[in-house]
Amino acid sequence: MILNVSQFCYPGRENFIHLCNPHLEKMKEDILYHFALGTGTHDFPALFGDVKFVCVGGSPSRMKAFITYIAEELGLGSPGCDYPNICAGTDRYAMYKVGPVLSVSHGMGIPSISIMLHELIKLLYHAKCSNITIIRIGTSGGIGLEPGSVVITRQSVDATFKPQFEQVILGKTVIRSTNLDEQLAKELMQCSKEINQFNTVIGNTMCTLDFYEGQGRLDGAICLYNEEEKLQYLKEAYDSGVRNIEMESSVFAAMCNLSGVKAAVVCVTLLNRLEGDQISSSHDVLVEYQQRPQKLLKSWSRLLCVKRSFA
Amino acid sequence: MILNVSQFCYPGRENFIHLCNPHLEKMKEDILYHFALGTGTHDFPALFGDVKFVCVGGSPSRMKAFITYIAEELGLGSPGCDYPNICAGTDRYAMYKVGPVLSVSHGMGIPSISIMLHELIKLLYHAKCSNITIIRIGTSGGIGLEPGSVVITRQSVDATFKPQFEQVILGKTVIRSTNLDEQLAKELMQCSKEINQFNTVIGNTMCTLDFYEGQGRLDGAICLYNEEEKLQYLKEAYDSGVRNIEMESSVFAAMCNLSGVKAAVVCVTLLNRLEGDQISSSHDVLVEYQQRPQKLLKSWSRLLCVKRSFA
Repeated sequence: MILNVSQFCYPGRENFIHLCNPHLEKMKEDILYHFALGTGTHDFPALFGDVKFVCVGGSPSRMKAFITYIAEELGLGSPGCDYPNICAGTDRYAMYKVGPVLSVSHGMGIPSISIMLHELIKLLYHAKCSNITIIRIGTSGGIGLEPGSVVITRQSVDATFKPQFEQVILGKTVIRSTNLDEQLAKELMQCSKEINQFNTVIGNTMCTLDFYEGQGRLDGAICLYNEEEKLQYLKEAYDSGVRNIEMESSVFAAMCNLSGVKAAVVCVTLLNRLEGDQISSSHDVLVEYQQRPQKLLKSWSRLLCVKRSFA
Repeated sequence: MILNVSQFCYPGRENFIHLCNPHLEKMKEDILYHFALGTGTHDFPALFGDVKFVCVGGSPSRMKAFITYIAEELGLGSPGCDYPNICAGTDRYAMYKVGPVLSVSHGMGIPSISIMLHELIKLLYHAKCSNITIIRIGTSGGIGLEPGSVVITRQSVDATFKPQFEQVILGKTVIRSTNLDEQLAKELMQCSKEINQFNTVIGNTMCTLDFYEGQGRLDGAICLYNEEEKLQYLKEAYDSGVRNIEMESSVFAAMCNLSGVKAAVVCVTLLNRLEGDQISSSHDVLVEYQQRPQKLLKSWSRLLCVKRSFA
């Protein structure tokens, strides 16, 4: 396999974080409240200046497992090493680091990942990081896919299948693009083919504000539609190109876009929503499914000049 | 002080959870995935049937602190007792119980609390609980209030100051009421007067989908407006009756309404947003502020026939 490593290493050029906020320059100190970190109390360039690859995901324990896994697989840490939580001063998010890899949890839903991304982007900016790639790994509901399939997001779409993220700023609706890096998605797809252990597709990902009614489930505390209406909605989603549903990709894509950061979303599907709503696979099966995006990222990181550029 | 305890104890009548979902009756088993609990594996009536009061809040450690505090203050548990996390099988939410009091974390933002509430309401329904009161305790940004003030929510309003919660179901926009229990708010206000340790007001609470741009902050990674526009927006919010801003109250009110559960929102303000955006008070001051809603709930629970009805 021949990968265009320049996409990752950017030899000869430095792509710094593009901060879309002129006010920050005027602040003497910046407190990243939800990380319990601040420029007045922490030396960001010393702590984070070498970061090149950030992996984010919902669950704190999964992000700890990821840093341990990637450290071992890439030979970046000592075997058996316990990585401390950099955000130990708060229980809002958890953050782990080994070499140039940062692993950060973001909780569930657009608002939760949005707070984390505001503070992460500022952290990378204050640390003067360059040539950053951020990848979200997560779980999702699949549409028309065998459970355990991995979806690399082509476009993140909203609950009406539009590739956009709508938010209210100062009481007015603002619409932002949810494009993701095409080349990065292709590289990840190529890695999956080489691993050849699980089904992987590139498809659209629908990002919703609710897990139950917002995703057409029949098993929430509130449900005022019937099974036929649900299936019609999911089939419309499928016909528009949607292959999985989760709750963070749209704001993730929009914020990475605006900040000039390469980004991808890689989610495993825990069930096929055309066949049900409940996540009823055994604990062991679900654990194995959740390792699949991690395997894909390991393969991608390893190929992408880790030893040349990271070491 | 004379409180109408019948509002809490409902002597002589049983108000069960109103489940707005006819599909659930047909399910043999219900897996509450994000709690790692299920009706097939756990005896809900035995575990939770005596619950009368549920306290919810964003942070898992604060909800653990709350159960320890309320157990000690109400004489419900053994001194020094360590309360186990009932949701130990997952790191999505944390749940603690002592006697009739349940304490559950919900993470940050509408989607995160919405998942938790769907599963909590189903849990209480499956456990055949009756006469439930749910109170959210949290942190918020105040408008025109001295930091540390506590706001008891009269109405939860959206980012355009409307008392409603808008969500997309099967691709269509649905609007729900965000009314909260007036009598319960008054009782809580009365308790605060009796404690007489901190400023408390009843006011509207604005619920947003974002902490930075969505609340008019100038210190996020993205900010495309100026200070004047920000202050104009916050002053309009104040003039419409808003006294604090947080990220969960609208869906909380809407879902409790639909499920026939008495509900209140009690948040401390960590700063006055007319004077800044960063949360820069010392750790100790912030810790003390966050205990204020807990003190209020303790006082309310104690007064409300705890010993008569709970013991």
